[in-house]
Amino acid sequence: MRWWFIAGVIGILLILLGLAMAVPLLVSLYYHDPAQETFLKSLGISMAAGLTLVILSKRKKRDDYINQKEGMTTVALAWTAIGLFGALPFYFSPEFITFTDAFFESVSGFTTTGSSVMTDIEAAAPSLLFWRSFIQWLGGMGIIVLSIAILPFLGVGGIQLYKAEVPSPVPDKLTPRLSDSAKILWVVYAVLTLLLIIFLLGGGMSLFEAACHAFTTMPTGGFSTRNASIAHFNSAFFDYTLIVFMVLAGINFTLHFQLLRGKTMIFWEDAECRFFLLFTLAMTLFMTWDLHGSVYQTFSEAFRFASFQVVSILTTTGFATADYETFPGLSRMILFFCMFVGASAGSTGGGIKCSRIIVCCKYVYRELFKIIHPRSISHVKVNAMVISNDVLRSIMAFITLYMAVFVLASLMLGVMGLDMMTAFGAVASCLGNIGPGFGSVGPAENFAHLPAAAKWLLSFCMLLGRLELYTLIILIVPEFWRK
Amino acid sequence: MRWWFIAGVIGILLILLGLAMAVPLLVSLYYHDPAQETFLKSLGISMAAGLTLVILSKRKKRDDYINQKEGMTTVALAWTAIGLFGALPFYFSPEFITFTDAFFESVSGFTTTGSSVMTDIEAAAPSLLFWRSFIQWLGGMGIIVLSIAILPFLGVGGIQLYKAEVPSPVPDKLTPRLSDSAKILWVVYAVLTLLLIIFLLGGGMSLFEAACHAFTTMPTGGFSTRNASIAHFNSAFFDYTLIVFMVLAGINFTLHFQLLRGKTMIFWEDAECRFFLLFTLAMTLFMTWDLHGSVYQTFSEAFRFASFQVVSILTTTGFATADYETFPGLSRMILFFCMFVGASAGSTGGGIKCSRIIVCCKYVYRELFKIIHPRSISHVKVNAMVISNDVLRSIMAFITLYMAVFVLASLMLGVMGLDMMTAFGAVASCLGNIGPGFGSVGPAENFAHLPAAAKWLLSFCMLLGRLELYTLIILIVPEFWRK
Repeated sequence: MRWWFIAGVIGILLILLGLAMAVPLLVSLYYHDPAQETFLKSLGISMAAGLTLVILSKRKKRDDYINQKEGMTTVALAWTAIGLFGALPFYFSPEFITFTDAFFESVSGFTTTGSSVMTDIEAAAPSLLFWRSFIQWLGGMGIIVLSIAILPFLGVGGIQLYKAEVPSPVPDKLTPRLSDSAKILWVVYAVLTLLLIIFLLGGGMSLFEAACHAFTTMPTGGFSTRNASIAHFNSAFFDYTLIVFMVLAGINFTLHFQLLRGKTMIFWEDAECRFFLLFTLAMTLFMTWDLHGSVYQTFSEAFRFASFQVVSILTTTGFATADYETFPGLSRMILFFCMFVGASAGSTGGGIKCSRIIVCCKYVYRELFKIIHPRSISHVKVNAMVISNDVLRSIMAFITLYMAVFVLASLMLGVMGLDMMTAFGAVASCLGNIGPGFGSVGPAENFAHLPAAAKWLLSFCMLLGRLELYTLIILIVPEFWRK
Repeated sequence: MRWWFIAGVIGILLILLGLAMAVPLLVSLYYHDPAQETFLKSLGISMAAGLTLVILSKRKKRDDYINQKEGMTTVALAWTAIGLFGALPFYFSPEFITFTDAFFESVSGFTTTGSSVMTDIEAAAPSLLFWRSFIQWLGGMGIIVLSIAILPFLGVGGIQLYKAEVPSPVPDKLTPRLSDSAKILWVVYAVLTLLLIIFLLGGGMSLFEAACHAFTTMPTGGFSTRNASIAHFNSAFFDYTLIVFMVLAGINFTLHFQLLRGKTMIFWEDAECRFFLLFTLAMTLFMTWDLHGSVYQTFSEAFRFASFQVVSILTTTGFATADYETFPGLSRMILFFCMFVGASAGSTGGGIKCSRIIVCCKYVYRELFKIIHPRSISHVKVNAMVISNDVLRSIMAFITLYMAVFVLASLMLGVMGLDMMTAFGAVASCLGNIGPGFGSVGPAENFAHLPAAAKWLLSFCMLLGRLELYTLIILIVPEFWRK
């Protein structure tokens, strides 16, 4: 393990983070809000720490080759460091008393979770709210991916970093050059964000709120500038606009790129995207049926609120237009199970991901088929491609590990005194990078009242979910450190 | 598919069932209770139906070879038929109004689940309570296994029937002859039951109650003759006696046989048994820690109630000495997760089973190991034996299917109007053949208030769990019926 190299990469990222803090500083200057000092201090500390690391690491030549172990360690430490330094603006703000809270909010932002410990969001300085949204946007497409896009020299050996941050089950590189792929992804992402800002402005939102919400919609983040989240606006136009963009954010971004290149039917041709869209529709109709007559009197109302909640949870955004804790059992169960499914691989969404669910279903069906035809040889195929046994094993292990983390983290929250439903909801939500949970962390509540230990554990779950388990878990396997 | 053959086997089983009904008839005569007519009618109908099937099937020669498809179909239909005809004594009793309720109680009995729809157990005729316990005892070691033991001619071609009823992940035959193996299992089972009766008599129970409770402990069934279950007796001696015998019932019965043959350390040498014992101990201590000071003031009291509840749920018995719904979140979560783990393969317990959990953990660890050493070739071993890839795949698919059934059945209960916790608890409990669940079907409640559709669905879940999914699920795969 070449620690100096890792320190150098983290140093670079912290410098970039410091530069990113200049944006809310400008917002602060524009609004004359009291957070200027906050951002100046945070910017200074981050830059200083970053420069120190870069200088200490004495990177005289650019080392091209990064092995997998170093890649995983770097990404795990980088995300932790960015969570820590990104917490500074929160920590220096009057809304946050403990560093635990600031770190939770920061990690919740960068991992695009959207769980919050802020009890009165609207009372905070506009620049702080902007920072809250901006870090979701930065985290959404991937911090490492962003770095590779803007610092092409990282891309040369950065494939290991890339794979550790975006461990999609079936990776598809867009172009032979990694830095070009990263650039394309970020451009598509930025264009969609811009488009959403225009739509929200058109619907009557202020530029500030339009930008903040677009910055948290496209990364499927879910932070809002309002205490009541999207329910505050109570507008069908905003609801449906956000539904469309949440769905777009939940689709593999390489498909958007292919769509732009003329493959007009790609959303339907791609097995994962087709599953994601049909599943979203099915769950929406299922929940509409449940809510119609029980909670909402008209079909159109039931459909509007059902579709928003389903899309918000399934894409792992976490916006709310209703308190689903007051919904009947069926609707609550639909949302609970949707938390595990998640969005598409290669999207900004979290959860287990649709492609893994598809493979898992086909894996089970193949087993049933084998009982009926014991001598048959059958393969699991997705998009007419045979999934290799290695990938199959890895996907089955991933899903099992995901459930194991859910069980262990829930029990640990139980040790800290949380009740069963709150523990289940909090872990499912944070591990899936969603936002609201169930019980005392439902959409009408927040995470402020949890004990400090629970906040650290849930922050860890968010990182686990964002880096898709292996990158972080592998570091706590003793075998990793042997020899 | 040779339907006449299947009908013949089911006919034989119904005749045996009719003969079994003579036992509660004798109990009824002894107690002069009003259920004599009930059992006479039920006996007559079962025998008549059985004889009709046997005669109609015109089995002139004994067909030795049964293929796997026929085996699975036979076992699935046989268990359904036995559930239906075993329900007759309940249906003819004043305590049961609908056939739905009678069928639910009967299936809950034969599958050794122990969920009940009886609201006042103590008011029922002794012979009916005896029947309730007796069917658990008959179902515990397997109805097919019993038939093979007492009708050796079934054993010749009956290996497919045996495998369909006892689809243990790593099957171990005791002797070359199946009927001998079946006999050994039943003798061990009967001896342990007798031993438990003696212990309970020694503790001061009446012979009737001792027999009834022994008949529901050894098959990890969980029906009691008392409304308050084992809490009624409020005796540390009974609690610990039952704990010991529940644990024995949760151990692979081939190990008991090996122990009798002099392998004194076999419980420790066997990987699954060691895991089962250590896991039980760990969960007990974990829960004792949670309950001590919060619910129970002394350590010994906390340990007594924690160990009973953990053992009862983990062995999938379902007896209760406390209402765990009033326990803190951690204890409830421990019990909820234990519902999925279950007991050992080859025991009378249900759930996913320890051996599958062990293999699953090793499967995931191997995947982590492979990330660290990509070129390594490593096997999953249990008891120093390499688990083949076929078995591995089958186990991973089993666990996934188990969770999928849990999700689907919970949603279907949601459609019927049940709340989330009740739906989760009811399905986990019935699928694991446990008994009590959570929410409105907790240990202090019963299943009487559920809608009829929910009772049929849960009965199906019990059968699914008892026959370990594949035997029943395969019948609803269209591919099974093709050609």
